[in-house]
Amino acid sequence: MPNDAARSPPPDDMSPMPGEFALIARYFAPLAQDFPGAAGLRDDVAVIAPAEGCELVLKSDAIVAGVDFPPDEAAGLVARKALRVNLSDLAAKGARPRAYMLDLILPDSVRESWIAAFAAGLARDQAEYGVHLIGGDMSSTAGPIVIAVTAIGEAPAGKIVRRGGARDGDAVFLTGTIGDSALGLAVLQQRLQAPDDAMAAFLIDRYRLPRPRVAFGPLLIGIATAAIDVSDGLVADLHHLGEVGRLDAVLEAARLPLSAAARAMVAADPGLLATILTGGDDYEILFAAPPTRAGEIAALAAALGLPLTAIGRLAKPAAGAAPRVTVIDEAGRPLALRAEGWSHFGGAGG
Amino acid sequence: MPNDAARSPPPDDMSPMPGEFALIARYFAPLAQDFPGAAGLRDDVAVIAPAEGCELVLKSDAIVAGVDFPPDEAAGLVARKALRVNLSDLAAKGARPRAYMLDLILPDSVRESWIAAFAAGLARDQAEYGVHLIGGDMSSTAGPIVIAVTAIGEAPAGKIVRRGGARDGDAVFLTGTIGDSALGLAVLQQRLQAPDDAMAAFLIDRYRLPRPRVAFGPLLIGIATAAIDVSDGLVADLHHLGEVGRLDAVLEAARLPLSAAARAMVAADPGLLATILTGGDDYEILFAAPPTRAGEIAALAAALGLPLTAIGRLAKPAAGAAPRVTVIDEAGRPLALRAEGWSHFGGAGG
Repeated sequence: MPNDAARSPPPDDMSPMPGEFALIARYFAPLAQDFPGAAGLRDDVAVIAPAEGCELVLKSDAIVAGVDFPPDEAAGLVARKALRVNLSDLAAKGARPRAYMLDLILPDSVRESWIAAFAAGLARDQAEYGVHLIGGDMSSTAGPIVIAVTAIGEAPAGKIVRRGGARDGDAVFLTGTIGDSALGLAVLQQRLQAPDDAMAAFLIDRYRLPRPRVAFGPLLIGIATAAIDVSDGLVADLHHLGEVGRLDAVLEAARLPLSAAARAMVAADPGLLATILTGGDDYEILFAAPPTRAGEIAALAAALGLPLTAIGRLAKPAAGAAPRVTVIDEAGRPLALRAEGWSHFGGAGG
Repeated sequence: MPNDAARSPPPDDMSPMPGEFALIARYFAPLAQDFPGAAGLRDDVAVIAPAEGCELVLKSDAIVAGVDFPPDEAAGLVARKALRVNLSDLAAKGARPRAYMLDLILPDSVRESWIAAFAAGLARDQAEYGVHLIGGDMSSTAGPIVIAVTAIGEAPAGKIVRRGGARDGDAVFLTGTIGDSALGLAVLQQRLQAPDDAMAAFLIDRYRLPRPRVAFGPLLIGIATAAIDVSDGLVADLHHLGEVGRLDAVLEAARLPLSAAARAMVAADPGLLATILTGGDDYEILFAAPPTRAGEIAALAAALGLPLTAIGRLAKPAAGAAPRVTVIDEAGRPLALRAEGWSHFGGAGG
């Protein structure tokens, strides 16, 4: 089970907590050893330079216990989620990840075993994504755990895929499947029941551990006109994708890529489509590209074994109208879905 | 009064709090407008590249309400402290500051007026230090305010002043004055009393608002052999400076640069020397350089109007001994000071 390994190291929880310097030397310095600019975390700063012809791409996001993850979540999973939500943004912009800074703010109740498991989770994802810890800080708090990560990637200078480059007539594509994470959170919180235990485990795992599309993202440079990772919810992020270029978006509900588990749950309760469309935390790449490049895009995704679906299109709004997102059914009729986070966007389908 | 301006903007605290996007557009996007790679904070990432022949220098540090600043501290001061503690590290390494990422983690009790004052504090320091907000995130928490900043500077490639380059016989220098911040915190917490109100205000201000030595730091490239900013306390940081190069440090107590306020307090209570030596949060630059360069260094500091003092020297320890810090009096006798954070270092003077 991939996620259990991160729970493992069970050190001396009865012994006193070592000081910050000792913890850094024991658990975090090894994560920096292969990046010379990190100086083994024995200095106050890190240095990094982009490769020739490239620039650095930075993203910073924090996760908070009780808000972004359950307070009793396994430390290794928390570490990997904190890192991956940032890598997902880099990927959606076409940047290759290189390094990250970590600010770890912990209440006194956190034991050394938690830190050991947290660092083990980071080590695992460093190996998976080829990134290195290069700096950061540990602080104490009277409140919940906070983990702030600044991820540093690299892309050809001036070439990252911005949010706002989409054009009238562009097709909209989505990697992977959508809605699993929102359903998984609802199952975890016992607000919904999955059809069986295996599906429940699948959905909960999708909530717990994002799969940033780091291999695919950089392939979109020069192809995608605009891109975003789906974190706020598919409809909200589609709105973001359209609004900078002042474009309407049409989303074909019948084409939404659903996992077997999500498909089964929607079949039993069609109202769950709203959860899928607006739930968020999907960390898939949503992007626009000219329809003429669909074949090329499909081939790139297929080469990575990554599901990819054309889910809609972008078009100029009626003169004077604000950009909006419309979800249509198989017959082209607007769906009147209502859910939180949805009403901002001009009453799609209304 | 410099610090009162940050308290000013008093918007509609009775009206409902705007959403994250609206707050970012209103208060934070203006802080990014002069840095093209920040894309007006309307994208998910920022891009940055070092100037020709340079590399980027990164530092990340978080401050927490109730730990690093009083919970009722003015928001503008909190913002400036969060930024300045990071700029101080860049300065000590010889890097010029360029930009920063900000993760702002706020409880629901924080009002819009707080955010307005926080952003005004950042705006003020951006003007002072020539840096720009280029990205980040807002999150909510059930705990205290947490502010994580990643500061990004620039220095000639391969040239930053590391901690560990000091050599046998190097002199040790210190910018500014030492101990004001620790005394200021004690006065603020009414553990100590300053001789008069003006001195109390001076010391408290030194605690509240670090003065990172951003103009002087870059001048040390090619001159200093090792440097660190004083945050953990002078003795602790002097130990850090010596230990990588395995050097003893001797600190001459009579040469310590004290402000008039600190001098008056030590005259009344000589035991306060321990607070001054170990209190921390000074954010001055402590550095080593060959004694032959003392004249050149003094001239550089004088040109900036920055006090600079040679306070000691580094030397090889006795064969087989661990590096240690010794504080000596005017007659060269070791002082037997005892204070928290001090006993780690081999019992200086003992």
